[in-house]
Amino acid sequence: MPQAAENVSVDQSGAFVERFSLEPTAQGALSGLTFAVKDLIEIAGRTTGCGNPTWAKTHPPAACHALCVEQLLAGGARCVGKTVTDELAFSLIGENHFYGTPLNPRAPERVPGGSSSGSASAVACGLVDFALGTDTGGSVRVPASNCGLFGLRPSHDLISVAGVMPFATGFDTVGLMTREANVLARVAGALLGVEIPEDPRVTRVHLVTEAFALCEPDTRRALAAPLDSLRRLFGDRLRETSIHEIDGELGGTGLEAWYQSVYRILQWAEIWNSLGSWIEETKPEFGPVTAGNFELARTLNRAEIGPAVRRRETYCQRVNAFLQPGDLLCIPTTPAPAPLKGTVGGRSQDATNYYPAALSLTSLAGIGRLPQVSLPAGECSGAPIGVSLLAAHGRDAFLLAAVRQLAQAWPDAVGGR
Amino acid sequence: MPQAAENVSVDQSGAFVERFSLEPTAQGALSGLTFAVKDLIEIAGRTTGCGNPTWAKTHPPAACHALCVEQLLAGGARCVGKTVTDELAFSLIGENHFYGTPLNPRAPERVPGGSSSGSASAVACGLVDFALGTDTGGSVRVPASNCGLFGLRPSHDLISVAGVMPFATGFDTVGLMTREANVLARVAGALLGVEIPEDPRVTRVHLVTEAFALCEPDTRRALAAPLDSLRRLFGDRLRETSIHEIDGELGGTGLEAWYQSVYRILQWAEIWNSLGSWIEETKPEFGPVTAGNFELARTLNRAEIGPAVRRRETYCQRVNAFLQPGDLLCIPTTPAPAPLKGTVGGRSQDATNYYPAALSLTSLAGIGRLPQVSLPAGECSGAPIGVSLLAAHGRDAFLLAAVRQLAQAWPDAVGGR
Repeated sequence: MPQAAENVSVDQSGAFVERFSLEPTAQGALSGLTFAVKDLIEIAGRTTGCGNPTWAKTHPPAACHALCVEQLLAGGARCVGKTVTDELAFSLIGENHFYGTPLNPRAPERVPGGSSSGSASAVACGLVDFALGTDTGGSVRVPASNCGLFGLRPSHDLISVAGVMPFATGFDTVGLMTREANVLARVAGALLGVEIPEDPRVTRVHLVTEAFALCEPDTRRALAAPLDSLRRLFGDRLRETSIHEIDGELGGTGLEAWYQSVYRILQWAEIWNSLGSWIEETKPEFGPVTAGNFELARTLNRAEIGPAVRRRETYCQRVNAFLQPGDLLCIPTTPAPAPLKGTVGGRSQDATNYYPAALSLTSLAGIGRLPQVSLPAGECSGAPIGVSLLAAHGRDAFLLAAVRQLAQAWPDAVGGR
Repeated sequence: MPQAAENVSVDQSGAFVERFSLEPTAQGALSGLTFAVKDLIEIAGRTTGCGNPTWAKTHPPAACHALCVEQLLAGGARCVGKTVTDELAFSLIGENHFYGTPLNPRAPERVPGGSSSGSASAVACGLVDFALGTDTGGSVRVPASNCGLFGLRPSHDLISVAGVMPFATGFDTVGLMTREANVLARVAGALLGVEIPEDPRVTRVHLVTEAFALCEPDTRRALAAPLDSLRRLFGDRLRETSIHEIDGELGGTGLEAWYQSVYRILQWAEIWNSLGSWIEETKPEFGPVTAGNFELARTLNRAEIGPAVRRRETYCQRVNAFLQPGDLLCIPTTPAPAPLKGTVGGRSQDATNYYPAALSLTSLAGIGRLPQVSLPAGECSGAPIGVSLLAAHGRDAFLLAAVRQLAQAWPDAVGGR
């Protein structure tokens, strides 16, 4: 079970860039809950730093709260501060050259994961009930998995990104992290503007074979027990499914193709659209890893964009046609537990294979515009690991109901409360 | 039938803010076609003006082309320039205080419509084969209708907005205008990354009663002939449907509720998220109408946001549950032909009822995230009027196929070629 590290102080966590208190604007379903927001999400009157000092210096204070923050305040929740993000959201690690590495209280020698690093840390340290992050390529799901939390990436386009720094707009989402499945459902329901049903009626759970094959051997072994629990819970509704049953391709490299031939290209292309002119104009100071990452975006061969869009839409249509309303996909959230601090560089310097494997896993929801929840599923090498459930685009309420039910039925494996 | 005003020069049209030539990066389905892009869409090395001189002065040149432009160049099309937009996209009229009013060649005493005013003018004047616009609240559909063109607003989120000025992100789309239905299908297929089928298999066409009731009497009378043609073509597959069969509400004001209680609130809220901090920092020079429009965004009671999101998602789910895969909705694009020049002020000064009626019509696709095509359908008071078909979210290929088939079957009424 995930432990809230109740005795960690705000200072020890390193999770926050700023503390304040925004009172709720109404009472509602979220009354009594406190939250923090990633410093990529606007709070009226404050400058959104986006994890980079040059950004903070070259942007004015926000004129108003991001739409998602207004929704939470109107639901009764109280906002207590802004949290550390990786520089301009461009990392899955959580080590910010300028603002430090927020504590992963479940594995202090390891990174929290990013880019919603401070949000994950604040929730895992018990400093707030939930926190908002953003997830383009895994930036909520990965830190949730690393820190033993529940983390939602919603269906693309169903939670407003107004007032959130644009990064790769075809993949950007606002997501959230919690310690408890029922809090996840409550808050996500408010953000999505929907009711979460009591009975999700899961008809099928597909374990995606190639996704589990991407895990490191230790991680795969550690996931065996939670998968056995899933088998007992779902019986013959659970089956092993190849990604090629979904994407209709013959052979090939499975999920790596989703990453290499689609996600990688479109993410870099859109990142340069969002940030390239600011970078060329201001020549910002970057941490060394970030500089390398943006160089990949800058030097992309943009003639690859047209074919990548066509392939993205083909994959997206196929996965959404495959998934029936009561179907779930099940994959590991990450290929391994959180890396030890200081061991993974940028995408251009990655000697560990962590990035391509992690992004191959996260590309499935990104390309398919699917909702995904990472659930705490156990430990590997003494650190948390997560397992993820995904549903068809727009089936967020069903997915959240299934996660809540699973956490109740299966408290030891998924840390339900 | 819409006439390309072949003898109008570029200068006479007033459609362009800049002329240049970007060659295709490959040969493909769009080879031989020329296009222009609204000056809200980035072209590498050039400053995107967004219709406001202060914006142009306070933003650097674009680092790269917008994703949609890259897709078109990779498809074989050639880009010949950038077109006039209403200031920061905040108008449906097409009269820019700083850059003038592009010619509506079909009704020179009337406005072209906006905010994609120059794009509509360039296509209607025969200066390009097609033009890109953006459509948040009607900015492609309305000028297409006013100028006798085909205009597509795609399903929300299915054509990339990377490299396009964010306005109201929950409603922003990249759309296009053409003189011919088959060009619309070709170009939209390239942007959407999908094939347009030969046989759309339309199962049902719903004429939305309350939408036609929003038209001015002359316009309703002028639409009678095209509706009769639709009745002959679709026979008993065509029926009259109340909006309340779709939204499940009892009585009420019909589509005005979609506008007043959802679209109006969320659009203004998101506009202030996108542009408020820039406006407060730079204090830009605005035309008088634009200044009034932004004042409405600035002074919105943001406590209305939470309930408006919930209502938006309820309406969106209901319209998409109502629409079967082979179903179309049919509504007038606008409540009247293009207003005479100088007769409609901003939303805050509208004595004519044009804005609320027009936005009530356009809110249906906006809230439902639906694709919509405006087809040229005839004339009223000597000016073009359009009729629109809509389909369920994601059914863009089906909708475009239906429009192409309709234009072939029905050339006199809808200007097919």
